[in-house]
Amino acid sequence: MTFTVAVSGASGYAGGEILRLLADHPDFDVRTVTAHSNAGQPLIAVQPHLRSYTHLTLKDTTAENLAGHDIVFLALPHGASGAIAAQLPAETLVIDCGADHRLESKADWAAFYGGDFHGAWTYGVPELPRLSGTQRDRLAKTKRIAAPGCNASTVALSLAPGIRAGVIEASDVVSVLAVGPSGAGKSLKAHLLGSELLGSANPYSVGGVHRHIPEIQQALRWAGGGNPTISFTPVIVPMSRGILATSTARIVPGTDAATVRAAWEDAYAGERFVQLLPEGQFPRTADVLGANTALLGLQIDENSGRVVVVAAVDNLVKGTAGAAIQSANIALGLTESTGLPVNGVAP
Amino acid sequence: MTFTVAVSGASGYAGGEILRLLADHPDFDVRTVTAHSNAGQPLIAVQPHLRSYTHLTLKDTTAENLAGHDIVFLALPHGASGAIAAQLPAETLVIDCGADHRLESKADWAAFYGGDFHGAWTYGVPELPRLSGTQRDRLAKTKRIAAPGCNASTVALSLAPGIRAGVIEASDVVSVLAVGPSGAGKSLKAHLLGSELLGSANPYSVGGVHRHIPEIQQALRWAGGGNPTISFTPVIVPMSRGILATSTARIVPGTDAATVRAAWEDAYAGERFVQLLPEGQFPRTADVLGANTALLGLQIDENSGRVVVVAAVDNLVKGTAGAAIQSANIALGLTESTGLPVNGVAP
Amino acid sequence: MTFTVAVSGASGYAGGEILRLLADHPDFDVRTVTAHSNAGQPLIAVQPHLRSYTHLTLKDTTAENLAGHDIVFLALPHGASGAIAAQLPAETLVIDCGADHRLESKADWAAFYGGDFHGAWTYGVPELPRLSGTQRDRLAKTKRIAAPGCNASTVALSLAPGIRAGVIEASDVVSVLAVGPSGAGKSLKAHLLGSELLGSANPYSVGGVHRHIPEIQQALRWAGGGNPTISFTPVIVPMSRGILATSTARIVPGTDAATVRAAWEDAYAGERFVQLLPEGQFPRTADVLGANTALLGLQIDENSGRVVVVAAVDNLVKGTAGAAIQSANIALGLTESTGLPVNGVAP
Amino acid sequence: MTFTVAVSGASGYAGGEILRLLADHPDFDVRTVTAHSNAGQPLIAVQPHLRSYTHLTLKDTTAENLAGHDIVFLALPHGASGAIAAQLPAETLVIDCGADHRLESKADWAAFYGGDFHGAWTYGVPELPRLSGTQRDRLAKTKRIAAPGCNASTVALSLAPGIRAGVIEASDVVSVLAVGPSGAGKSLKAHLLGSELLGSANPYSVGGVHRHIPEIQQALRWAGGGNPTISFTPVIVPMSRGILATSTARIVPGTDAATVRAAWEDAYAGERFVQLLPEGQFPRTADVLGANTALLGLQIDENSGRVVVVAAVDNLVKGTAGAAIQSANIALGLTESTGLPVNGVAP
Repeated sequence: MTFTVAVSGASGYAGGEILRLLADHPDFDVRTVTAHSNAGQPLIAVQPHLRSYTHLTLKDTTAENLAGHDIVFLALPHGASGAIAAQLPAETLVIDCGADHRLESKADWAAFYGGDFHGAWTYGVPELPRLSGTQRDRLAKTKRIAAPGCNASTVALSLAPGIRAGVIEASDVVSVLAVGPSGAGKSLKAHLLGSELLGSANPYSVGGVHRHIPEIQQALRWAGGGNPTISFTPVIVPMSRGILATSTARIVPGTDAATVRAAWEDAYAGERFVQLLPEGQFPRTADVLGANTALLGLQIDENSGRVVVVAAVDNLVKGTAGAAIQSANIALGLTESTGLPVNGVAP
Repeated sequence: MTFTVAVSGASGYAGGEILRLLADHPDFDVRTVTAHSNAGQPLIAVQPHLRSYTHLTLKDTTAENLAGHDIVFLALPHGASGAIAAQLPAETLVIDCGADHRLESKADWAAFYGGDFHGAWTYGVPELPRLSGTQRDRLAKTKRIAAPGCNASTVALSLAPGIRAGVIEASDVVSVLAVGPSGAGKSLKAHLLGSELLGSANPYSVGGVHRHIPEIQQALRWAGGGNPTISFTPVIVPMSRGILATSTARIVPGTDAATVRAAWEDAYAGERFVQLLPEGQFPRTADVLGANTALLGLQIDENSGRVVVVAAVDNLVKGTAGAAIQSANIALGLTESTGLPVNGVAP
Repeated sequence: MTFTVAVSGASGYAGGEILRLLADHPDFDVRTVTAHSNAGQPLIAVQPHLRSYTHLTLKDTTAENLAGHDIVFLALPHGASGAIAAQLPAETLVIDCGADHRLESKADWAAFYGGDFHGAWTYGVPELPRLSGTQRDRLAKTKRIAAPGCNASTVALSLAPGIRAGVIEASDVVSVLAVGPSGAGKSLKAHLLGSELLGSANPYSVGGVHRHIPEIQQALRWAGGGNPTISFTPVIVPMSRGILATSTARIVPGTDAATVRAAWEDAYAGERFVQLLPEGQFPRTADVLGANTALLGLQIDENSGRVVVVAAVDNLVKGTAGAAIQSANIALGLTESTGLPVNGVAP
Repeated sequence: MTFTVAVSGASGYAGGEILRLLADHPDFDVRTVTAHSNAGQPLIAVQPHLRSYTHLTLKDTTAENLAGHDIVFLALPHGASGAIAAQLPAETLVIDCGADHRLESKADWAAFYGGDFHGAWTYGVPELPRLSGTQRDRLAKTKRIAAPGCNASTVALSLAPGIRAGVIEASDVVSVLAVGPSGAGKSLKAHLLGSELLGSANPYSVGGVHRHIPEIQQALRWAGGGNPTISFTPVIVPMSRGILATSTARIVPGTDAATVRAAWEDAYAGERFVQLLPEGQFPRTADVLGANTALLGLQIDENSGRVVVVAAVDNLVKGTAGAAIQSANIALGLTESTGLPVNGVAP
């Protein structure tokens, strides 16, 4: 069976990546692509790397243009998807790649985003361990999916297994991320210019203000963390894509190393797209470039009493577009991995 | 007065950087440069960026070739400087840029390096706060200087002010560093190839095994930290130089934000080469490229109960060669900043 | 029908890329992977980005281990494939990704490579225009394919249309290429270290000595160029993959602009993997990253009397592994594009 | 003697680089810095790498603010300096880093820039060979200096020696340049975003339309080239700074290799900032990063009948700010190299 698809925000990085992945999806047929200022142009004029879409022209992003498809991907700026989503039919599968439907807490939304609160949809990280089962179970029964924040899902996948198993503490987590600038989108800001980023490591949103913090805390609570606190610092480094997240948490006193490691082994046994590397191995972002794969390396540091989890993710794939498509596959009852690459483009 | 200088390891990255900086030093006259496999070649054939040294040829690295100068810089592989240093006259000012003379603890040396233990020389980070005064005081009275490990001094400078002032805890420190590969030297290892590093973030020495850990702990003890513990993770990112260290420590309960910040302001007031940025500002490594400057940004994260200090350093300058020269200036009674650039090469 | 496949040199960059692409090829079944010093290790220990190959272990590169498959890909150092290829059965489809079987001229081989001359196999660039037809015709009837040099095929595809059509001269061609270091393989050479390449543009093989020059001349002769001469300069730039080739040739006097452009439009009309962009547009290497696509932009420069063709290619895909698989598809009578991506991974 | 200095456009890349270099100039005292939208801010808030300028605040760019200094550097957008320069006193030394005063030909100005034509000032490339002497002679007698276009001066220095000596032809020159994006300034354009540039090589201004072309032709005419034609293609590569220019020209038939090489050796013998490397050596941009040095490598390619000259320049130093200061030193009768670094920051 073939599902018809519309992609809004098709001129941006997330929209482009959804289209790149869908080009190899056997069950999805992209019929409509929409944009804001680029409406009216051929898609390929704006996204010249998408050679298989020479037949599509960008339309305006309106509910009219998006309705009438089986699936709608919203890849719009934060705050823009709530209103348009409300106009789409209930039976349409809608996946929002923006932040508008990620947070359950109205207070968190107000504190970190502001503006109208639209309520939470089903969170699109299938492998995420929850106190009971995984997030996958919920995705099988929804028509509204909130694709995750790329940094948030990377950190949540890094730590949720240990919290669920009770081997690490959810308080006093520290995460520092080396990230590529594509996570910030195609926005014209001076600090995102190539001249500013090439050859430099640039921190931003330091000290507890990054918008992905409440999203991480929410995921850690789902895994059983009572009152998660996290020191979270992202650093833009000179690579277009990728997240290398180093997360540490205190080991619950008295837990031996094998028990700690077993929490992650159990959580991700059999998972295709979230893999724990063997002891002593750690991932590089190049290993997952272009792939829907999160690779994790884990080490117990006995001197500091902490576990260190290093996770590599392609922010545009497993962090956004791949997570969206994987979640859509589940919601539609398709084989979960359909159309999604597991091998990275390296070197 | 002009001091004569010999630089060993002149074909490597640290040695090359010492020479680049000394080219603008009015009181130092480089007479001898030595190397191992490149001995016999013109310096400029191996270091083509050092255009002002067309008159020098690399000699063998022997005590004979190094002796007879007022100052000797040792930029040799770890473990190689101890033996040669022992043969140099007591009145010669010797600055070791390797690790051989950094650690006071024989047990730490054995655990993290191994081989012969040579004892500690005066640590070459002048601004480092100690329980009383700064490290500068000790450098004024020495003929033997151990230039710091680049990551170690960056983290030590980031946290020592708060420990000395009693506003942060020395236990459960977490540091994650984005670093350029030049810190690893010019060694032919597959994981240091350009193809492996370009477009990728690559962690290494994860989980408490990095050799700079005992050096950081030693410095934090000097500042008054009782029993420092640190979770330390370096990540190689695609820039040839630079360290962007994100360090967090728990704030001593009950300390207000202004008091925390004041510890750093006091420690570095009047310092030329270690500067705390105004509140809300954070440094980028490009800001200090080629400069002997450490820039710090500090934020209190009340939710996590931690202070976050982000420090930017050029690993080859303030992290190594600049620290060596600054320390030598002090030891010789010269103006401390002589020959050392404070402005970064940006963008 | 499923064909069994062996890949030698599977621990290198070209071998790894063949495997990455074959993971999505529905008709090929990779049974055997071989290597030299890494034999005995799991493939994934050496190529951690190839997550779908957890079941394979590297064997020694011997004719015995490679024989018994329908298809053998040789991704060995130059000079190593000739001897082993001679031991493979005549009915096996063999694709050599090294240089050993590219050149028809024994004199060229002696001048640019040296060592035993093994004679030329069918050149693996299907779209390459020849005086009559394209190279594709020859590939349909062969069991021995020489995958091209990445720089050579990029320049040949850039200029052959104009030479065949008689609108440009084959003498006094000038090509300058910005290339990623992965084209040089995983060899441990100081000038390929990340520290040397990051933030720098590094020329090599300047002045008529690069080994791809006779290969380009050969292809231009096939297109009808009488006595091609080329000034060819490659420059390594800080990206792991990609070739951006700027090639210029003198326009045959009296030829109008439309006629010049039509030569390329005609040559590549209907081609999936070699596309001429609309007038005024030029390709970026990111547009073809990971894809089997060559994108060309063409401009007539009336003041200089030259046509400028800018071509973007992923050296490991369309430049090597993709060309190999595309050619194999043709030789086996499969749909030519099977298993080969056309969309680039951008940004 | 100390000269007072004003720098306009101090918030941009060229202005910032002038300030970085002037910080080490013993005879210049920067009193005034001006900007457009950033006026009113501390300089260091906009240029955080310039730590030695904490005392300066950006003023509006007006003739009033600039007048009253011995030297005025104009680092303004093209078209903006003509009007303001006209209001400065005749006895003030004015150096324009924009294009407004580079071209002697009103027709060239109209064709490549447009708008008001202001006439040519003395061109600021001291070492440039002219039919008689060098450009240095003219700079000693001027109060109005046009700092060069970075690409233009790099190519002109690459080829002028051979043209003056009559050993190469000025027609049918081909130049292809790998350049960093800082040459395009701090302008907010989508194609200059880090996400677009990282990991990619991006051509622009292909096919005879780049604005530096008439400037190159003018310089080659000064060297004796009758009617220079040039195919000129710049490619942005992922490094913040640097130009690696590969230029080729046909050797005048019958000229032997030694005579060709001697033209460049003679032209640059004794020059500190323009150096020809020994035969077989070619420069990398890292070798000149941050330095006022142009390094040239030269090879005769007998098969193609062309000389290949590869030149490495830091676009912001020898290409702009360094050339400006070097020229100012000459005009003021100071030692030409005052305040200008010759050693690059590598790796």
